[in-house]
Amino acid sequence: MNAVELLGVDWGSTSVRAFCIAADGDVLAVRRAEDGALSGTGAFDMRARRLLGDWLERWPEAPIVLCGMAGSDRGWLHAPYVPAPCGIDALAANVAAAPFDRPAYIVPGVSFVDRDRCEVMRGEETLLMGLSDPEQAVTICLPGTHTKWVELVDGRIVSFRTYMTGELRASLLSAGALATPAAQVNAPTAFLSGFAASQQDAVLTRNLFQARARRLLGTLVPEHTASFVSGVLIGAEIAQEMDISARRGSRVILAAGGALAEAYEMALSQAGMAFETIDPEPLAARGLLRIARRAAPSRNGAM
Amino acid sequence: MNAVELLGVDWGSTSVRAFCIAADGDVLAVRRAEDGALSGTGAFDMRARRLLGDWLERWPEAPIVLCGMAGSDRGWLHAPYVPAPCGIDALAANVAAAPFDRPAYIVPGVSFVDRDRCEVMRGEETLLMGLSDPEQAVTICLPGTHTKWVELVDGRIVSFRTYMTGELRASLLSAGALATPAAQVNAPTAFLSGFAASQQDAVLTRNLFQARARRLLGTLVPEHTASFVSGVLIGAEIAQEMDISARRGSRVILAAGGALAEAYEMALSQAGMAFETIDPEPLAARGLLRIARRAAPSRNGAM
Repeated sequence: MNAVELLGVDWGSTSVRAFCIAADGDVLAVRRAEDGALSGTGAFDMRARRLLGDWLERWPEAPIVLCGMAGSDRGWLHAPYVPAPCGIDALAANVAAAPFDRPAYIVPGVSFVDRDRCEVMRGEETLLMGLSDPEQAVTICLPGTHTKWVELVDGRIVSFRTYMTGELRASLLSAGALATPAAQVNAPTAFLSGFAASQQDAVLTRNLFQARARRLLGTLVPEHTASFVSGVLIGAEIAQEMDISARRGSRVILAAGGALAEAYEMALSQAGMAFETIDPEPLAARGLLRIARRAAPSRNGAM
Repeated sequence: MNAVELLGVDWGSTSVRAFCIAADGDVLAVRRAEDGALSGTGAFDMRARRLLGDWLERWPEAPIVLCGMAGSDRGWLHAPYVPAPCGIDALAANVAAAPFDRPAYIVPGVSFVDRDRCEVMRGEETLLMGLSDPEQAVTICLPGTHTKWVELVDGRIVSFRTYMTGELRASLLSAGALATPAAQVNAPTAFLSGFAASQQDAVLTRNLFQARARRLLGTLVPEHTASFVSGVLIGAEIAQEMDISARRGSRVILAAGGALAEAYEMALSQAGMAFETIDPEPLAARGLLRIARRAAPSRNGAM
């Protein structure tokens, strides 16, 4: 059996994933738990012990490397942001050692400041370091609660932009004027209507109200509300990114799976943007391993 | 004592106001209750009886006129939307008679369809009919949960636009990445920073995330989050309305009071838009009386 080099943890706000990573980069096992860094409670060392469980005895030599909200100011240990532009060396040089009975390191987040604009990421920097052979200049879209669009040049994070697309979608559909008891069905035509609204009119608070007004006047069925709202929100994001991409001319990589990938693919195609989709699933483990190795070129247990 | 001509009710989603309106237009008494058309429960005739109480015995001849969500499809009786452009005659001609032991009429809402754009209002049409001596062409801003910007020409509702400004503000500040336990203080500088963000960048989901990123990087204190978010949301709305107003050249009237008026006044001044502020308080009762009279020129009890 493949020797385990690293126990990796991607600790999100609301859930956590742990990986047993072999020396050849294979992920031998994955564990998921709802024990998010911000949603769970209790001391982080105890939570890490519970999450990793028997892996700790089976691979006593493997260090632990964590990314995501474990390093936030409400996480296990604050790993301050590394300012972009930055690459894997700066991330590796700034891991924070967490108090544990074996080497345990937290990858820092990345910040980006452009005049008064501020941007932060935690976790995405590790996924980005897991990309294979990044081209000279590429734009990566990482959709989610807080969607990131990142400019990578030679594998370094040069700049990025955050859109609260997923968070706004969830909160608008769960309560208020757009919420509906109707079971939602995926409706590409409603998605494209929402997308079109965002291309005609720049103001999101106006386009979102369309989901209510069209329902009341009968041009949108309640079951298609979520699709319409997704089209409005993703459409607003794409409208801006299309401008930036036209200016830069860089290739777009969409790192997404499932329904989220389908939605973004529809929007990107509609906008006429060239892109390719990649599976985000293996990126975190690969990024953790690369950062861990860069942090400790000697690979025998200690980092 | 002044004779009461009308018992008026402005039935909102979450609260309700009732007015005793004298023949000379004076409001002799006002009652407020949290029994909103959508938040309360029970049969509407019983709720109206409870709200109006002793007024019903004291003024047995006075008809009741209601506006707002009482006429929605989840209200007392569905009063279908009258399509804009429309004026007081169309509103008066389309009141819906509610089953009660005296004449009780519900003012219809107004819809506006411009190609695939849909707009609806319920309650605001009555406030608008309460404006004194509207000019030939004027733009009215009615800030709130769903802020309306309405074009009035010779007192008729010609077109309007809705922005979910208040609803989004409340939901973003109550939960999620922008929520904070810090007690909020009114901060004009933070409001203007948020406003400026919306003028630089059209995408609201990006500007809203600034409230989190700036807090994490230390350029926004948690206590100023609400002011910053207000600036972003109102800024987005004003950016678009400024364009429309520049095209139209019509005068802007802000119908708002208190903190809401202050916020919109700051934004309008910052945008260099000419405006005047009026008190929205007396508009509903005045509009109800005018519509009631138009619905029934004979003023002796029956409409």
